[in-house]
Amino acid sequence: MSQYVFGVDIGGTTVKLGFFDVEGNLLDKWEIPTRTQEGGSHILPDIADSIQKKLNEKNIAPKEAIGVGVGAPGPIDGQGVVHKAVNLGWGVFSIKETLEDILKMPVMAGNDANVAALGEMWKGGGQGSNDLIVVTLGTGVGGGIIIGGKMLTGATGAGGEIGHIHVEDAETDKCGCGNTGCLEQYASATGVTRLANRKLKNSSKDSVLRSGEVSAKTVFDAVKAKDELAMEVAEEFGKYLGECLAAIACVVNPEAIVIGGGVSKAGEILIDYIKPHYEEKVFHGSRNVKFSLATLGNDAGIYGAAKLVLDALN
Amino acid sequence: MSQYVFGVDIGGTTVKLGFFDVEGNLLDKWEIPTRTQEGGSHILPDIADSIQKKLNEKNIAPKEAIGVGVGAPGPIDGQGVVHKAVNLGWGVFSIKETLEDILKMPVMAGNDANVAALGEMWKGGGQGSNDLIVVTLGTGVGGGIIIGGKMLTGATGAGGEIGHIHVEDAETDKCGCGNTGCLEQYASATGVTRLANRKLKNSSKDSVLRSGEVSAKTVFDAVKAKDELAMEVAEEFGKYLGECLAAIACVVNPEAIVIGGGVSKAGEILIDYIKPHYEEKVFHGSRNVKFSLATLGNDAGIYGAAKLVLDALN
Repeated sequence: MSQYVFGVDIGGTTVKLGFFDVEGNLLDKWEIPTRTQEGGSHILPDIADSIQKKLNEKNIAPKEAIGVGVGAPGPIDGQGVVHKAVNLGWGVFSIKETLEDILKMPVMAGNDANVAALGEMWKGGGQGSNDLIVVTLGTGVGGGIIIGGKMLTGATGAGGEIGHIHVEDAETDKCGCGNTGCLEQYASATGVTRLANRKLKNSSKDSVLRSGEVSAKTVFDAVKAKDELAMEVAEEFGKYLGECLAAIACVVNPEAIVIGGGVSKAGEILIDYIKPHYEEKVFHGSRNVKFSLATLGNDAGIYGAAKLVLDALN
Repeated sequence: MSQYVFGVDIGGTTVKLGFFDVEGNLLDKWEIPTRTQEGGSHILPDIADSIQKKLNEKNIAPKEAIGVGVGAPGPIDGQGVVHKAVNLGWGVFSIKETLEDILKMPVMAGNDANVAALGEMWKGGGQGSNDLIVVTLGTGVGGGIIIGGKMLTGATGAGGEIGHIHVEDAETDKCGCGNTGCLEQYASATGVTRLANRKLKNSSKDSVLRSGEVSAKTVFDAVKAKDELAMEVAEEFGKYLGECLAAIACVVNPEAIVIGGGVSKAGEILIDYIKPHYEEKVFHGSRNVKFSLATLGNDAGIYGAAKLVLDALN
């Protein structure tokens, strides 16, 4: 009898679903819209419905489908209870129990960034390492910490929220979280753009960034073209992120650090700006860490979710 | 049949040994000297010998003694392999296998600070919490992170080395690790003394610290007597430690933070100086953390070592 698992990654606008064999081969993937109306009460029934349809479509017997893993944007504790997910309209309830009641199969749930980290460990840029920091540089900065092959969930599901580590006392702009000087304000796509605009204003240096759109992409494109001002921005970005990763590594002592998210599309050059600052500041016991880029892109979440439920079943 | 375990805490000058029942009641404790001569090759045989003698003395059958846990000052990985312990003269070898070969019973080993953290979780200031940061403010700053009731060991046994998190760019004095601006330079007993001496030099303020010895103890005694200069030192100490604990908490999302080591003898007043800075800077998901003082003192290591081997056997 073949056995299969589902990996589900719930986002604010779409839910990604993946259908895997137990070795982690992605056999099928698709998306459904996230219906956030009415307190997000349709989201899990919609997912259950979609999974049932897929089982029928593929002619899979219920006992061949051994479980469903779920990642969602919010703090989710080790028992699969979400503690408010604002983007989905969710309050506090058990994702695990709710979905198990509908589907009649084992469900595991975790925070989306943590689950994506598990995916990168399993089938992505972190393969071969069991102790891992995954940092996702998107609109914000997300993080997932893997310890001995397992997600660091934390007491209330807020483990790995490294985007809100305070890194700059002198900051005056406010972060979305209400604090000032969070890592996210320097290392996210928005943060890089902010740093670039600030430098364009305060410097008289010529730059290709003075004409056209300023974004994390255009900044790193300019870096590759040896634009001096852009390189100063990248240096600032790398210092904040590298030093912060060094602090995290003193806590975690990772084997590898994986950089993902939209900003990571800039490629290996990103690591060139981060690594020297990391190595300068980190405790020697964690100096020999492998830096790599995430490879699963938007599929990291469904891979990690599948792995989460597989680990729970074994 | 009763069952017993041993907890062993190896220090640079003495080895502490504890004899426990499986509920964690400390039935006997004693010390032997640490013989660091000849590459520390006598240390484990001495421990084995001492354990055998104790079993004979108490008339315990070998099968009633179910295991030995060991904490030692150095990076020790999840397989019980130490990667150099300079203070003991040790290079790289398996503590677990070496001691198991002599004693013919299961052995587990871990870094002393991590093991002590496990002890505080089990029977000390961290009781009731499974996700814990334990920070030990002694000559240096040590740390132990407990995740889901288990020590965070890390890839090479350097997990929880929080004393060497970089917290100050402007520092000019060197830390023992070779870097500058490590947490240890502000929050250890030595660090508090350094901060106090620096302030005494740069301030014209009157203070009881101007006459007599300056130490972490005299500083916090002066704080309790409302000495203004001492309170400024405590404020500086609390800001560095509180903000650094906030960063660690963004990674770990702990349920509780336990403060131990010699400096913690100052009592609850220490927490009054740390907590406001912690709460100001931490991500809201980790704001409601319980701060407490360590309670096991120098016995934390033997308790934690006993727990380490008990967990491995269950």
